[in-house]
Amino acid sequence: MSEPIPVQVDDSELALLTDLYQLTMLQAYWKERMHERATFSLYFRKLPPTRRFMLACGQQHAAALASRIRFTPSALERLAGTGTFDDAFLDWLAGWRFSGDIWTLPEGTPVFQNEPFMEVDAPIAEAQLLESLIMNLVQLETVLASKAVRIVMAARDRPVVDFGLRRMHGVDAAVRGVRAYRTAGLAGTSNVLGGLRHDLALNGTMAHSYILAHDHEHEAFGAFARHYPGTTLLVDTHDTLEGVRKVIELMRDDPEVRVSAIRLDSGDLGELAKGARALLDAAGHAEVRIVASSGLDEYKIDDLLEDDAPIDAFGVGTEMGVSADAPVIDLSYKLVEFAGTPRVKHSPGKINLPARKQLYRRLDADGRYAGDVIALRDEPIEEGEPLLAPLVRGGRIDESALARADQARERVRDALERLPGEVRSLASGKSGYPVELSEGLARLQSST
Amino acid sequence: MSEPIPVQVDDSELALLTDLYQLTMLQAYWKERMHERATFSLYFRKLPPTRRFMLACGQQHAAALASRIRFTPSALERLAGTGTFDDAFLDWLAGWRFSGDIWTLPEGTPVFQNEPFMEVDAPIAEAQLLESLIMNLVQLETVLASKAVRIVMAARDRPVVDFGLRRMHGVDAAVRGVRAYRTAGLAGTSNVLGGLRHDLALNGTMAHSYILAHDHEHEAFGAFARHYPGTTLLVDTHDTLEGVRKVIELMRDDPEVRVSAIRLDSGDLGELAKGARALLDAAGHAEVRIVASSGLDEYKIDDLLEDDAPIDAFGVGTEMGVSADAPVIDLSYKLVEFAGTPRVKHSPGKINLPARKQLYRRLDADGRYAGDVIALRDEPIEEGEPLLAPLVRGGRIDESALARADQARERVRDALERLPGEVRSLASGKSGYPVELSEGLARLQSST
Repeated sequence: MSEPIPVQVDDSELALLTDLYQLTMLQAYWKERMHERATFSLYFRKLPPTRRFMLACGQQHAAALASRIRFTPSALERLAGTGTFDDAFLDWLAGWRFSGDIWTLPEGTPVFQNEPFMEVDAPIAEAQLLESLIMNLVQLETVLASKAVRIVMAARDRPVVDFGLRRMHGVDAAVRGVRAYRTAGLAGTSNVLGGLRHDLALNGTMAHSYILAHDHEHEAFGAFARHYPGTTLLVDTHDTLEGVRKVIELMRDDPEVRVSAIRLDSGDLGELAKGARALLDAAGHAEVRIVASSGLDEYKIDDLLEDDAPIDAFGVGTEMGVSADAPVIDLSYKLVEFAGTPRVKHSPGKINLPARKQLYRRLDADGRYAGDVIALRDEPIEEGEPLLAPLVRGGRIDESALARADQARERVRDALERLPGEVRSLASGKSGYPVELSEGLARLQSST
Repeated sequence: MSEPIPVQVDDSELALLTDLYQLTMLQAYWKERMHERATFSLYFRKLPPTRRFMLACGQQHAAALASRIRFTPSALERLAGTGTFDDAFLDWLAGWRFSGDIWTLPEGTPVFQNEPFMEVDAPIAEAQLLESLIMNLVQLETVLASKAVRIVMAARDRPVVDFGLRRMHGVDAAVRGVRAYRTAGLAGTSNVLGGLRHDLALNGTMAHSYILAHDHEHEAFGAFARHYPGTTLLVDTHDTLEGVRKVIELMRDDPEVRVSAIRLDSGDLGELAKGARALLDAAGHAEVRIVASSGLDEYKIDDLLEDDAPIDAFGVGTEMGVSADAPVIDLSYKLVEFAGTPRVKHSPGKINLPARKQLYRRLDADGRYAGDVIALRDEPIEEGEPLLAPLVRGGRIDESALARADQARERVRDALERLPGEVRSLASGKSGYPVELSEGLARLQSST
């Protein structure tokens, strides 16, 4: 055996899923006896040009894992093998626990530039170690949910189903991605493990290979429809409208056969949907729905529906699976306070906000979001709802603060009603959503 | 507890990491007693506009997992809960094993449009089930290695280190990504678990937070350099060239302090590198190297080196971590033969090649790649080296055919010498690399 071929990373290895410098800094803090409390803040400075808001997502997962991290004997042995760490430090690491607090926005909260998603308050060596893992975990779900919600908006109440497993970046992305999609409001997924684990409906029917493995398309349709009454048949393997005619014939010739939908997966989806709808209606099958897939994203779906394409549901994979137009968000996890003193890195042209913070969202008279204020954590602010709340206290997850699986989805649904129209626009460009600093934070920012 | 928060996917769950339609088709094949052998071929039709070749990567991993997949009692119970599957079918699934053959290109092989990376020959229900997992696993490493090798080429023998853990799409992407980076020729990684598991050197020093946690930058530098003799110091927290001066003073004032390198992480990297080099050289520190990071990709590295920036090594994260300009490759896994008969889906404007195949690569008189021929598997071809070889036979990995960890990297290094100049160009555009069909395949293609 030349090389081990594992996929899984288990809890006992999570402590090693970090950047080397976190561990070298930890050893330095330990040697220097720097055990004072620090606060690190997680935020991004700029929205990608193709996003007018992001959905904060994955914080709950990240916080839960943070509280579970331990250095096991085997992890310590692997670290010892690097030659970088003293035995006494490794002994100390063996007892490492996260004992701090983690404040987060609720998952599914729309979030804008410079707003803290998450703040970690803990002895510096604890807060520092979590950086890489928190960023990795939060970014994935945030990026995927923020793309998916645009597709949900474009589809205008028509169900959207995730077909992305094969295009997503590895096993964890595919499985946790389904959690982000559930939050964003998708109706289902083709991904069996993802859907079962994260409680999203499973969808899926047949591939072209099934049709090709039969000698004739109508045989394949007949066999599949008898196995799965009320199924969806894929009609584009040879000629799409010919395929639709075969489905109609099948229903005519065998009244026991029930077909709920047909799926179009290639060609001009708008024209083919109109042609298919006309054929189905003329045959008295107004009840058979049309599902479309093949390279779809929010722009194509919007164009199809603007053009009145009679499509009832969408399957979306490639573009959504990697958030192709914005596959990354430049998250920062920055030290903002140490030993009770605000700290900040000065970067030309970049904003970094010092100190522990709170985020307030104001509503207008109609209940719409009117603007946000980033304030000091303990500053008295009169207006708006404070959004950051502690999820981990003294190193332990507060079970009562964990959202249920469906609450994040509900929060997104509610937020889509409250976001101003310009923020919900799919076009590239600035949303103009107001994000201001409180008086206290502005004063501190200019003096730090 | 509102929701389970697992990260890990273990072997016992891998069978469920599939699209629902694979399982509904499986049940249909089982009911129809279709057990004939099929061949599925894995390929892409088009290179992304920003790629002139891809590095095939991840096949070995995918093949090894394919041979391990089993439906455990708990997986079967979860499937039973969906209500879609008959008990008798689930009983049959309990005994499901992959018994077929998998042919693959060696990992690290440059690959072009329509070329088979991998072919799976097995009873149709076995080859079908593997589709989603194989595509997910192979795509990740192929996409990441294909981006990373461009960065390696741009850096012209200067070491490139992976800093991408925090930006990559989840845990599996971050860990297996390091394997792809090793194949592509990176010199190291900051990712501790990824580097330890996949045998790539660990690199990393300090973050801005370490500087900020000390009252003065020079204190932080001094402490860190004493903890880690020969370390790299991050000089841009406040003012980059001031930071460099402090490093020089530190070395002057304390002759025991050894610093191997400084790292620049913001600002105009080219100008700052020149300024830093001048200061270091004037102080007699020609031995201190300059490492640059911050939003780098192959284009920025190429520009810096074209402009003679005195940078000795590069740390690359965001852009490489998600292959931001081409985060996805549109892989197809298509049925090409069933029960001994070639099959093919006809799609307007798309090429699908029927039948089991072999790929031949021809060399010119200088040993450079002169062009490829896609042929029928058993067609006698005179010229060129056949590249597809069986890695799994009768459901078992052929241990003797597995490449060692360093062989794929060697293969890439060798390939970069042999690829024509236009294929190695970093510019967008077609490489013009010749990929032809053999006589036998062309004849079959036009008649199927």
